[in-house]
Amino acid sequence: MATKFNQLGLIGCGLMGGSFALALKRAGMVRHVVGYSKSPSTVILAQKLGIVDQAAESALLAVSGADIVLIAVPVAATEATFRAIRNLVQAGTLFMDVGSTKVDVVDAARGVLKERLPFFVPAHPIAGKESAGIAHADAALYRGCQVILTPVAETEPRLVDRATEAWTAVGAQVRRMSPEAHDQAFAAVSHLPHLLAFAAFAAVARQSDGARFLELAGPGFRDFTRIAASDPAVWRDILLANRAQILGQAAIFKAQLGLLEVAMRDNRPEVLEALLRDAAQGRGQWQMFAARGTTPPPPASK
Amino acid sequence: MATKFNQLGLIGCGLMGGSFALALKRAGMVRHVVGYSKSPSTVILAQKLGIVDQAAESALLAVSGADIVLIAVPVAATEATFRAIRNLVQAGTLFMDVGSTKVDVVDAARGVLKERLPFFVPAHPIAGKESAGIAHADAALYRGCQVILTPVAETEPRLVDRATEAWTAVGAQVRRMSPEAHDQAFAAVSHLPHLLAFAAFAAVARQSDGARFLELAGPGFRDFTRIAASDPAVWRDILLANRAQILGQAAIFKAQLGLLEVAMRDNRPEVLEALLRDAAQGRGQWQMFAARGTTPPPPASK
Repeated sequence: MATKFNQLGLIGCGLMGGSFALALKRAGMVRHVVGYSKSPSTVILAQKLGIVDQAAESALLAVSGADIVLIAVPVAATEATFRAIRNLVQAGTLFMDVGSTKVDVVDAARGVLKERLPFFVPAHPIAGKESAGIAHADAALYRGCQVILTPVAETEPRLVDRATEAWTAVGAQVRRMSPEAHDQAFAAVSHLPHLLAFAAFAAVARQSDGARFLELAGPGFRDFTRIAASDPAVWRDILLANRAQILGQAAIFKAQLGLLEVAMRDNRPEVLEALLRDAAQGRGQWQMFAARGTTPPPPASK
Repeated sequence: MATKFNQLGLIGCGLMGGSFALALKRAGMVRHVVGYSKSPSTVILAQKLGIVDQAAESALLAVSGADIVLIAVPVAATEATFRAIRNLVQAGTLFMDVGSTKVDVVDAARGVLKERLPFFVPAHPIAGKESAGIAHADAALYRGCQVILTPVAETEPRLVDRATEAWTAVGAQVRRMSPEAHDQAFAAVSHLPHLLAFAAFAAVARQSDGARFLELAGPGFRDFTRIAASDPAVWRDILLANRAQILGQAAIFKAQLGLLEVAMRDNRPEVLEALLRDAAQGRGQWQMFAARGTTPPPPASK
């Protein structure tokens, strides 16, 4: 049975943070939520929606008295948030973020928090919706999704367990890996696909006949480019924060594309079909973790 | 009011052909369906499912007595089908195909059918399902989808009108364009996206850590790579048939990807965000034709 938290300090009242607060409340895992948002109207809305019980006037005040803190701000604002709250980062409180990149967040935490680094448990919930903002907060957002925790050598093991309890309580499956392994894997399966989708949509749209071409596009194009509608500011930050890994994955992708192009240019049906078949069979067998439904993998060992 | 057809000759009893036959019957547009499939068991199944009324032992026999013929075979088999039926390609019967590329089909028709070319109306219905085969035939497959007709100078205008009536009767919106314009547009919005999705999935899967990476992939990756599960033999033919256009589109894509990579490598957040914003806004505004629902565009003029 998971131990309850008394007070959640929520820094950043958007879709991710609001959904976490709502889900933690619904699970009976927290008594009180104190929220801070850079935009005062956002935190007022969060109160009206019953997601936040009390508005804080600063990030530091949101931390005061909390035994669990979620930093759910844009990745580029994480370091400034660490600076704002560092004097209250201390034993007895669990600090987490929700950023899509982890090496840069850990570097920022190490640089700013220094000897308080052990109280920060870096987290990346693999969740999201097309529509951002507190108004779309959803207690079921994390149900069935994966949350990656990337503790480092200094991280307090007891807080990693507490973090695991919190995310499990909101319905997520928790995995642990190093920040480096995280950023490498997500460069491959998330960051590069976003970069390619942005490039692919722009490549069509910017042609002189682009508008006419787009009128003819069907469901394949729709799904392939869906992630190209993602928030440009969020993705600017992710693509820069993890650029070494992403550029490395882009090189691997371009080599693979090159093999297909050569098979086309040289009119080699057998070579081309073998390459396509390899991809199609792999994709046909691949099942997304979330789609496995009732048979989640065993929890990762420490 | 559309004039009815008496007999449909269906060459190739798969998802596309079976769905057309079923939909045309349901619309009360045809009295009798004679079907031919290379595989005898397929045409027997088509009969059991009530899609085909009578099995033909050859493509030529399926054409005999028909006033509408649909060639719904793999693109690479189209030319052989023209050879098999050319002696019965004649005035009074509408001949159509369903191929995803059109210049190669028209070239094959011109080479094989010669002075009978006017009776062939090249067609490309923008429809499909994950699951192929006659067992998945669906009378609603073409409802709300687009069908592109690519008549050439010699094509009999009356037959283009008949083709338009047939596709309209099964619920499709009909557009007309030249074979060249068709292949250029679909290289951009369909063929290249498939090529990129095949390459992107293979690039991840073939890495030494690929299996581990794939365990972490979420809904964005799922949608981005969905079309990489497409039939390798079908896409081998499409990618080769339209390779000049597709390789041209690939070059445009790579230039666009290069702009993003340079902005990342040079750490230029403003440049990167402007490129991403351009794509994201365009993708946000883009609505697939089929999704427009009740407000289809006006029919294209001849």
